[in-house]
Amino acid sequence: MQYSQMSKADLLAKKQELDKTFAELKEMNLKLDMSRGKPGADQLALSMDMLTEIKTPDDCIASNGFDCRNYGELGGLPECKALFSEVLGVPAENIVVGGNSSLNLMFDYIAQCMTKGVAGNTPWMLQDGVKFICNVPGYDRHFTICEHFGIEMINVEMTENGPDVEKIRELVKDPKVKGMFCVPKYSNPDGITYSDDTVRALAALQPAAKDFRVIWDNAYVVHDLNDTPDQLLNIFDVCKEYGTEDNFVEFTSTSKISFPGAGVSVLAASDNNMREIMKRLAMQTISYDKLNQLRHVKYFKNLDGIRAHMKKHAAIIAPKFQIVLDALDRELKEDGLAQWTRPNGGYFISLNTTGCSAKRVGELCKELGVTLTSVGATYPYGKDPADRNIRIAPTYPSVEELQKAAEVLCLCVKLATLEKLL
Amino acid sequence: MQYSQMSKADLLAKKQELDKTFAELKEMNLKLDMSRGKPGADQLALSMDMLTEIKTPDDCIASNGFDCRNYGELGGLPECKALFSEVLGVPAENIVVGGNSSLNLMFDYIAQCMTKGVAGNTPWMLQDGVKFICNVPGYDRHFTICEHFGIEMINVEMTENGPDVEKIRELVKDPKVKGMFCVPKYSNPDGITYSDDTVRALAALQPAAKDFRVIWDNAYVVHDLNDTPDQLLNIFDVCKEYGTEDNFVEFTSTSKISFPGAGVSVLAASDNNMREIMKRLAMQTISYDKLNQLRHVKYFKNLDGIRAHMKKHAAIIAPKFQIVLDALDRELKEDGLAQWTRPNGGYFISLNTTGCSAKRVGELCKELGVTLTSVGATYPYGKDPADRNIRIAPTYPSVEELQKAAEVLCLCVKLATLEKLL
Repeated sequence: MQYSQMSKADLLAKKQELDKTFAELKEMNLKLDMSRGKPGADQLALSMDMLTEIKTPDDCIASNGFDCRNYGELGGLPECKALFSEVLGVPAENIVVGGNSSLNLMFDYIAQCMTKGVAGNTPWMLQDGVKFICNVPGYDRHFTICEHFGIEMINVEMTENGPDVEKIRELVKDPKVKGMFCVPKYSNPDGITYSDDTVRALAALQPAAKDFRVIWDNAYVVHDLNDTPDQLLNIFDVCKEYGTEDNFVEFTSTSKISFPGAGVSVLAASDNNMREIMKRLAMQTISYDKLNQLRHVKYFKNLDGIRAHMKKHAAIIAPKFQIVLDALDRELKEDGLAQWTRPNGGYFISLNTTGCSAKRVGELCKELGVTLTSVGATYPYGKDPADRNIRIAPTYPSVEELQKAAEVLCLCVKLATLEKLL
Repeated sequence: MQYSQMSKADLLAKKQELDKTFAELKEMNLKLDMSRGKPGADQLALSMDMLTEIKTPDDCIASNGFDCRNYGELGGLPECKALFSEVLGVPAENIVVGGNSSLNLMFDYIAQCMTKGVAGNTPWMLQDGVKFICNVPGYDRHFTICEHFGIEMINVEMTENGPDVEKIRELVKDPKVKGMFCVPKYSNPDGITYSDDTVRALAALQPAAKDFRVIWDNAYVVHDLNDTPDQLLNIFDVCKEYGTEDNFVEFTSTSKISFPGAGVSVLAASDNNMREIMKRLAMQTISYDKLNQLRHVKYFKNLDGIRAHMKKHAAIIAPKFQIVLDALDRELKEDGLAQWTRPNGGYFISLNTTGCSAKRVGELCKELGVTLTSVGATYPYGKDPADRNIRIAPTYPSVEELQKAAEVLCLCVKLATLEKLL
């Protein structure tokens, strides 16, 4: 029976029963972390052979004869650009292979827009009240970049096909709206892949701002969980039809392919954007870590190599997603206590409570030693207007820990709902 | 006999003789590069064992149990901070170990001052006409950072004890003067180490600007060439006497210790500056490449390990410096055609012509296939007011190449002087 249809006496009895379970779990002094999209140790073990790909001086020489131990090749090693050209379907000359963090590349690009402006327009710092569209729920790290630079964020709700493009079309009529953060494939946290219509609508946008730029964070480009993966249109192919290639800058990384923090990052951009970005990069650094780029090329070789590797990741993490989904199905579905996504890839399950405060669920989980992503973090300024979204990151805990953590989460959703009803 | 005292006929005869040598050299179709401070292949070979320090999953675990293959430890690995704490003489908690480029750390710090300001003051972008002191001759990459951000540069001449502190004391009375770039040890290109009095004078500065920051680029902190190395005072120790620790942010890297482009970078700052920097870093990235940091710690172990390693570098490059100095002594000294430095460390010899245009020397060298650092680059905006400074980078060519390149350089100084006199 749904909680909302139960009598007060029944609700109290139910709560008493769950309080007992809560007390038992509390005594276990759990310490479980479902907060961040971090690979587990067994995933990290997959790429160990990469670390010994370079042993001799000869191993350090790139295909063009370049010694990767020395300065040079600012925009990345040619064979590493070629690898990501294949991954993203973008010509190698439109690619920069950077350091270990695509977030860093994005931050730096926004910083460039702030200090130098876009395409000859006034730097954003010197314009009055710059705004960004933020698709919600979304990735907290995108929002904090905007917040850091004082860029006002406007929420646009996600649908099952991607962000609400009608809303976006309206918003970009305002010349102060300068851009948008998107995770177009297996979005963080919903795991939604933008439909063809959505990608086309975004590519077709004619914003009032001449310095409008979409941060197209294709973080999960090859991060499928099963054999029926989502398909995302190549944004630059679609943009060609509308002449809007300059509106998008794409990013990805191997953080969840090889090693988080010791992978390589990638930026793809139109010729015009590339010119502006390379001009700044030439001031910012001499070159990125090409030995690490070379390790990646030697180890993965090509897109097929990356795909084969991603199947090994999927074999480890798909069962973890299933554990959480099974628990949610078993514990919360019948009573309609929450709704959640069943993604075909990415790193998260997004859960929306239907009858209680997500913040309260987070507090209860914390009391039992289970850390969730800060509730609210999936919205700009940490403010989830409906206080309902919880991002579940199932990859880092072990299978046993995850079973326990999922149990705790479901219990806490029930308890928070009962607290609200009583 | 000095050229200036020779008769026109003797000058013409001399020129005819040198023109013949020039023509002979031209026929050799040389291709020699003395332009950048790049280590040679034999130096790169010194650190090869570092690349196989990490082979097994156990090797990836830091002393605090942290798995360096995963996200985390934003400011750097504790043992790597400890290593550079020893190198710089700064507490580990005041150190950030970053990515592969200290130039990148400096650029990002200036970008932070531009967009966020310093110590609660108005961001530099929103102040009118921000200025920086640039010690000349100096490092072109420092100047191009200023130029990129539209920071007006004011030249201050170097003396044999470091920059002219009298001039600096006057300049910092202007609240628009926001900082200064310094390479305090084995300065680029002069190889001058700031004297104790200079360091004290800089530490004692009381600039009118409350948001004044010195970029203390200690790039050559352990880069001695012989057994009588220069000694530089620890800037933060001296600042303590004056309460000016906040005025300085120190940088270094292992680019010329391990691998250029695959080393680690380091920032050291006061508690106050560290708070502002870490706040920005937490927005900019998730963590740096800790596997590479760990490689460095495992390989060097401590400052003694680094010093022993630097002796191997010195054994390779000191003879290269000597080749250039010998050629200059032999060819240019008696006739007083130029003056040059004899550094105890660093990567450069700085040469000032006395009777000809340095630009013309560069042109003549180029005609013979010898690339020098763009003449003028050692001054802001690429403008050497006296057109006399040439930065010689002797490390990258082989001994044989260097002998030829030094011969060419001396010949071109002579020819340019004769051209001027005739």
